[in-house]
Amino acid sequence: MRRQGCPLCEGDGGLVVARTPRFRVVRVVEGEEALRFPAFYRLIWNDHVAEFSDLLVTDRHACMDAVTEIERSLRSLLAPAKVNLASLGNVVPHLHWHVIARFEADSHFPAPVWAPPQREAAPLRLDLAAVDAAIAQRLGDKAST
Amino acid sequence: MRRQGCPLCEGDGGLVVARTPRFRVVRVVEGEEALRFPAFYRLIWNDHVAEFSDLLVTDRHACMDAVTEIERSLRSLLAPAKVNLASLGNVVPHLHWHVIARFEADSHFPAPVWAPPQREAAPLRLDLAAVDAAIAQRLGDKAST
Repeated sequence: MRRQGCPLCEGDGGLVVARTPRFRVVRVVEGEEALRFPAFYRLIWNDHVAEFSDLLVTDRHACMDAVTEIERSLRSLLAPAKVNLASLGNVVPHLHWHVIARFEADSHFPAPVWAPPQREAAPLRLDLAAVDAAIAQRLGDKAST
Repeated sequence: MRRQGCPLCEGDGGLVVARTPRFRVVRVVEGEEALRFPAFYRLIWNDHVAEFSDLLVTDRHACMDAVTEIERSLRSLLAPAKVNLASLGNVVPHLHWHVIARFEADSHFPAPVWAPPQREAAPLRLDLAAVDAAIAQRLGDKAST
């Protein structure tokens, strides 16, 4: 279930905030993305699977239930203008979901984070430790499912 | 459950290929997106809801089951390099899922469709009528659920 040379098989892919038998949740802490979008989380499926539709239905539901819990953590603690969800994987075809809190003051809003920036990045002061803890608690309750 | 001034409450949002009590599926047929990414579908929730986590769990599962069926239609008929899934809604905060078949020859691959293009757009000849029909059939079976 691991593929040699896949960066998400060979590494965690970010700062791990929750780990379950099926997936882990990481916060993106390196690179320009982390500076521009500090509340940028990824749910990374543990097994090497390329497409969402490769999962069994129970796994798909568990995956999106967890994405929902991440989204709820972001909403309740950060009150973002919008939450963005995406599973792309064109470069790294190992199933992972981007869950990103967007703010009107961020460098790209309302454009997608992958589009050219709209403005200079404003420093966003967010209590990410609290978000990390909330995600860990919400998903920890389900770690055995 | 409709909001005045919301383009996805006041219009279909594309060429409708399937309609169910909870959502519709449209193909994007207008603008540059349709030229660059002809197999660009959207699942649009019928009620005006902003975030995925606003849905009840049964609706969330039904939503993603349908996204999965769209993805499977694209994969079985078009064999894309990758399928991209995204729910952003920064501009139109009415829940909709982008489901896009990506090809190595498309203008942006492997970048996201929202990033700057990587190359001139190659004309992609795809049997979209067959994809439309496959989606309608797969979701029609579930129209009453």
